[in-house]
Amino acid sequence: MNILEILEKKERKEILSKEELEYVINGFLDGTIKDYQMSAFLTEIDLLGLTEEETIDLTNIMLNSGDKIKLDIEPLADKHSTGGVGDKTTLIVAPLVASLGVNVAKMSGRGLGHTGGTIDKLESIKGFRTEMTLEEFENQVKRINIALVGQMGNLVPADKKIYALRDVSGTVDSIPLIASSVMSKKLASGANTIVLDLKVGGGALVESLEEAKELGTLMVKIGNMNGKNTACLLTNMDQPLGFAVGNALEVLESIETLKGNGPEDLNELVIRLSSLMISLSKNIPLEEATKQVEENLYNGKGYEKFKEWVEAQNGDINSIEVSQKTKEIVSEKDGYIKRIDALKIGKLARELGAGRLTKEDIINFKVGIVLNKKVGDKVEKGEKLLTIYYEDKEIKEEDILAAYEIVEEKVEKPKVIIDMIK
Amino acid sequence: MNILEILEKKERKEILSKEELEYVINGFLDGTIKDYQMSAFLTEIDLLGLTEEETIDLTNIMLNSGDKIKLDIEPLADKHSTGGVGDKTTLIVAPLVASLGVNVAKMSGRGLGHTGGTIDKLESIKGFRTEMTLEEFENQVKRINIALVGQMGNLVPADKKIYALRDVSGTVDSIPLIASSVMSKKLASGANTIVLDLKVGGGALVESLEEAKELGTLMVKIGNMNGKNTACLLTNMDQPLGFAVGNALEVLESIETLKGNGPEDLNELVIRLSSLMISLSKNIPLEEATKQVEENLYNGKGYEKFKEWVEAQNGDINSIEVSQKTKEIVSEKDGYIKRIDALKIGKLARELGAGRLTKEDIINFKVGIVLNKKVGDKVEKGEKLLTIYYEDKEIKEEDILAAYEIVEEKVEKPKVIIDMIK
Repeated sequence: MNILEILEKKERKEILSKEELEYVINGFLDGTIKDYQMSAFLTEIDLLGLTEEETIDLTNIMLNSGDKIKLDIEPLADKHSTGGVGDKTTLIVAPLVASLGVNVAKMSGRGLGHTGGTIDKLESIKGFRTEMTLEEFENQVKRINIALVGQMGNLVPADKKIYALRDVSGTVDSIPLIASSVMSKKLASGANTIVLDLKVGGGALVESLEEAKELGTLMVKIGNMNGKNTACLLTNMDQPLGFAVGNALEVLESIETLKGNGPEDLNELVIRLSSLMISLSKNIPLEEATKQVEENLYNGKGYEKFKEWVEAQNGDINSIEVSQKTKEIVSEKDGYIKRIDALKIGKLARELGAGRLTKEDIINFKVGIVLNKKVGDKVEKGEKLLTIYYEDKEIKEEDILAAYEIVEEKVEKPKVIIDMIK
Repeated sequence: MNILEILEKKERKEILSKEELEYVINGFLDGTIKDYQMSAFLTEIDLLGLTEEETIDLTNIMLNSGDKIKLDIEPLADKHSTGGVGDKTTLIVAPLVASLGVNVAKMSGRGLGHTGGTIDKLESIKGFRTEMTLEEFENQVKRINIALVGQMGNLVPADKKIYALRDVSGTVDSIPLIASSVMSKKLASGANTIVLDLKVGGGALVESLEEAKELGTLMVKIGNMNGKNTACLLTNMDQPLGFAVGNALEVLESIETLKGNGPEDLNELVIRLSSLMISLSKNIPLEEATKQVEENLYNGKGYEKFKEWVEAQNGDINSIEVSQKTKEIVSEKDGYIKRIDALKIGKLARELGAGRLTKEDIINFKVGIVLNKKVGDKVEKGEKLLTIYYEDKEIKEEDILAAYEIVEEKVEKPKVIIDMIK
């Protein structure tokens, strides 16, 4: 077996065996297969696809490339979002689910590009520890049902190395590569319930609904085949989720949501994600789970759990700072908001310092953008559209207005949850 | 402009502008575009193709990446073969054409893999110089109408760097990449007549006739668009060309051919290649050119020019040594030869030491294989099929017999020239 023969076989559109996929992944990890050969292989997959069986094989090979977390805790639920603008759902869903006795022992990432990362958001709470030993992690979950950290152990090294290459070789948007990347990581982190939030639209990895359905179905199948209760929501990422974009601003919005005052779209999404995790973990109907979730969202128990969690990880909930320098942007005309471009808003927030363009960039937790209006809202000329929280970097008013489309005719509020795959 | 945007644009099957192709090639040459990004781009081209216009642009960008040879000599004809087993046509065609007053100022390569290179073959003549200055080169052509060297100047550096990557990333067999590679080099070497010999079949770069026609048509178009008289023959490379495979053995066969005693297939091919070069250079009908070529092949003038040429480049025509150790292989049955696998013969000759597997390998000029029979010939049990010339390395009789298929029913002699594109 050699890499040139495998590249040629794939070029002839023949199906690769598990041994051949193993040869490629292991060879890439041990350095015998070079970056330029692997990027050729990833490009072939991007252009020609993989069969369902090949994708399942690839996922398992990646899963077996490193450590797997095994905790002596049940039930254990995990969620994963494919990344969006203003997506702070983990901050709300994790304590809400934990408050109902379902354990959340979660690893999260940092943001890169126009999307934020949960770890960055949590670090905007002064003192919040995002690193701990496996023992500390396990003990905290046993004690208060919830813990959340950054990297832990050498999970799925194949994904780390492949992802770094995908990022610079134009192969990020391949369905089998996304599925194997997401699912190998979720399977390695050991939860028995996995709920996926697959973003669809302009600000998301996947732009078309058709592709999103294919990807969601594939990921759910991979999860179920590995003995995990798996479900996937397809959710709208044409506009930012909720109002706040930026780290500390999103934490504050999460707290408001846990106090029962969340924005409509964010509220709906966290209830559905939490209910799915509860329903699958407790093996109860979704309606029953939804009732339990709504109860703990509105009776303050979710927020109590949030406070307990932040305290356990050394965070000071009273030390969440946002910038004092603000600028309000108002509408230039009357009408209805037809579009708020999530990708543009995400990039502008990053320009303010809320995100990273490279891994070395340092985030300013205090800056960001808070919307006042969402798609479907009526707006009058001179009425506030949004507030910019800035410090050392500014953005142009015309650039942020370019993210908006305001029309005369009434606009429907878009659905936040487009579909559910179980 | 950035490489990720260009990779995505190509993935969407959009046509790339000349500026975008320039950005990629120049970025790869100056190192801002990395190997793994270029191999992704080459894989995209391999799988999705390029339009004719894109291929023409790519060729011109590559052509302009380095020096171009400009000689004050007319008419100047060049030939190029895509590489085969036993292909010694340049050794015969170049002096034959020169003997008719059409200048040949040619650069040739060394062999790699299962195919031989003209420079290696010439170096099996003791003393033959394959390096000279541009001035020496030009003066020799002016004096005797012919000179042949290895590399000279920094011609098409883009092709060198791209070809090295294609070789290890499974993108050698792409039609637009072959066309731009061959034609940029031919255009850079300055001849006004270019005759291409595109090998088709098991021992060749291109296996299917359909692909060969596409490639040939494209190369002729690129040549003509650049103001060169260009023609392309599609020729059979299912079996070795002529009888001899191996450096000194091929030189001896070339001399025999120039003396009018060449094998039928080799004879036919060198006459056609030479006639095309003469016809296009002198602007006379092909029939008239063929008459002139046949005359100089059989009246000894071609061979006289060969001797003059070898002497001018310091070679001693009486010092061409072949190994004294030989082994004859005989047929195990009666019948007709249906197949002699050129690829297998080429690889076996390489194993004997006649070729290189890596650039560092040292060639043994004296070894090789001389066939006694070709496809279509009748053979009796115990009759000689071939002679192996070996020194320190041997090959197994069963391996060489595996290259042959001998059947009971009569077999047609295959045509050596399949098609001509002008």
